[in-house]
Amino acid sequence: MSDQVTSHLADLMPSEWLVPTSLSESMNYSLMAGGKRLRPLLVLSACESLGGNQEAALEAACAVEMVHTYSLIHDDLPAMDNDDYRRGKLTNHKVYGEATAILAGDALLTHAFYNISQMHRKYGVNAESVLSIIEELSEMAGPRGMVGGQIADMEGEQGLTDLAHLQYIHIHKTSDLIVFSLLAGGRIAGANEYQLQALRTFGLKIGLAFQIQDDILDLIGDENKLGKKTQSDVEQQKVTYPYFIGLDASRTEVEKLTREGKEALLSADLNDPSRLLEIADYLLNRDH
Amino acid sequence: MSDQVTSHLADLMPSEWLVPTSLSESMNYSLMAGGKRLRPLLVLSACESLGGNQEAALEAACAVEMVHTYSLIHDDLPAMDNDDYRRGKLTNHKVYGEATAILAGDALLTHAFYNISQMHRKYGVNAESVLSIIEELSEMAGPRGMVGGQIADMEGEQGLTDLAHLQYIHIHKTSDLIVFSLLAGGRIAGANEYQLQALRTFGLKIGLAFQIQDDILDLIGDENKLGKKTQSDVEQQKVTYPYFIGLDASRTEVEKLTREGKEALLSADLNDPSRLLEIADYLLNRDH
Repeated sequence: MSDQVTSHLADLMPSEWLVPTSLSESMNYSLMAGGKRLRPLLVLSACESLGGNQEAALEAACAVEMVHTYSLIHDDLPAMDNDDYRRGKLTNHKVYGEATAILAGDALLTHAFYNISQMHRKYGVNAESVLSIIEELSEMAGPRGMVGGQIADMEGEQGLTDLAHLQYIHIHKTSDLIVFSLLAGGRIAGANEYQLQALRTFGLKIGLAFQIQDDILDLIGDENKLGKKTQSDVEQQKVTYPYFIGLDASRTEVEKLTREGKEALLSADLNDPSRLLEIADYLLNRDH
Repeated sequence: MSDQVTSHLADLMPSEWLVPTSLSESMNYSLMAGGKRLRPLLVLSACESLGGNQEAALEAACAVEMVHTYSLIHDDLPAMDNDDYRRGKLTNHKVYGEATAILAGDALLTHAFYNISQMHRKYGVNAESVLSIIEELSEMAGPRGMVGGQIADMEGEQGLTDLAHLQYIHIHKTSDLIVFSLLAGGRIAGANEYQLQALRTFGLKIGLAFQIQDDILDLIGDENKLGKKTQSDVEQQKVTYPYFIGLDASRTEVEKLTREGKEALLSADLNDPSRLLEIADYLLNRDH
C-alpha cells in the first residue's frame, strides 16, 4: 500500500515542463524521502473499511501526504526547529536553500487542494462530499488546526506551561491531520454521520497516542532506528508527556488511548475495520 | 468597496479563542496593513458585471486577499527579498519574528481555501462551480502559477536571462492571481464559457500591464507615494521590462496591453463592464 502511495505521488506532481526545475526537484525530494506514509494508509484503510472506491481514496491519500510533507519542510527551517536531517537524509533547505524550501512547502500545500478538487470529475465522488473534504482539510491543517499546534509547540517551554497546553499542541499538531485522513476516507466511501463520528474519535485517540509515543521515543529511542537524534525535546526545552507525568504513566496512556480508539471503531458497524485496527496496534508497538 | 473588503476580512478570521494569540495577531497585522485591495475589487467587479450575488463574491474576494497577503509575507522574509518595510509599515517578520511570519503565511493560505469551501452552504453557489473556483485557485496560486513565478523571479538575474523568462515571471507571479480573481467573480455570477474566456484575456493583459507599470515605478516612482524604496530591482539585479526594452517602449506596452484587455472585455456581452474598465484605466494611470 505504501509503495502504491509513493508511485501515485509521482504521478500527481505537476508536469515538469510547467514548473521551474528547482521547484519541482525540491518538492519531489521531500515527497520521495520515504517515511511511514501513515496518513495515506489511514485514508485508504478508512475507505476500505466501508468498501469505498480505492482509486479516489488514493488521490486524497496523496494530497494529505503533500500537506504532511509541506509541514515537515517548514518545521525543519532554521527559523523553526533548524534541523539538518530528517529520516536520515539532509533536510530540504540544506539541499535547496531556505527560499526554495519555503516555496516548495507552499507549493505542496496548494497542490494538495488541487488534487482533492479533481476527485469529483475524475472519480465521480459527490461534489458536496468533496467540498466537505476541502473544508475539513483547511480547518485541520489551518490556523485552528495544525498551524495553530505548531505555533503553540514553538511557545511551549518546560517550566512555562502545563499539561492542557501540551494536549492542545499534540491534538492540533498531530491528531488533526490524522483525523482528517480518516474522515476523508470515510466521506469518499459515503460514511454516515455515526460512522464519521467513530472515525473521528478513533483518529483523535490514536493521534494523541502516536504523539505521546513520539515523546517517549525522543527520550529513550534508538537513533539508528529513528533516523534522527534523540533527546532533542530536552535540548530544545520542549514540553512532553514524560516531562509532565513520567515515562511509565506515558506508556500506560498510550495503551489506554489505543484501546479506547479501537473500541470506538468497533462500535460503528463498519464492513471491515481490520486494517485500521492493525494500524493502531502497529503504532502502539513501533520503535521508530 | 475596499472598506467593505477590509471589514469583511476581519469577520472571516477564525475566532481568536480558537487560535494562539500570536498567530492570530500576526495574520491580522498583514491583512489589515491596507494596500489597494485590487484582487478583491476584481472579484466583486467581475461578479457585478454579470449581475451576480455580491455577498458570495465578497467571500471569494476576501479569500484571494488572504492568498495575496500570504505571498507578500513569505516574499518579504530574510531568505527571500529580505524587506524591512511594506506599504510603509514594518514587515510581518520584523514584528513577529521569522517563524511566526512563515506560519502566519501558511495559515492565511489554508484559511483562504476554508472560506471558499463555505460558499456553497452559505450562499448557495453551485457546488461544482465552487469546486472549479478551488481548482483554479490551487492552479494559479500553486507550483504552475504564483509559486512558480516566485521561484523564477528569484532565479532571474540581469545578464543571465531573457524577455521570455521575464514574461513567465510576470504572468505567473502577478497575472495568475488577477486572472483567478476575475474568473471567480464570473463563476459566482454563472458566466458562460465565452464570458469566462474574455475575463481571462482581460486579466492576463491588465495583469501584465500592472507588473510592467510596477517595474517602471520601481525605476522612476516617488518613494513617498509608493511607501517603499525605489531602485530595488536594480540593486537586486532583477530583470525588468525597462531593462530589456527601455522605459518608453515599456510605457507603450502598458498602454497597448490595457487597450487590448478592454477590447476583449467589451466583446463578451457582459451586463455592465463599466467598473472593470475603470479599474483598467486606474491601473494605467497610477503612480503608486
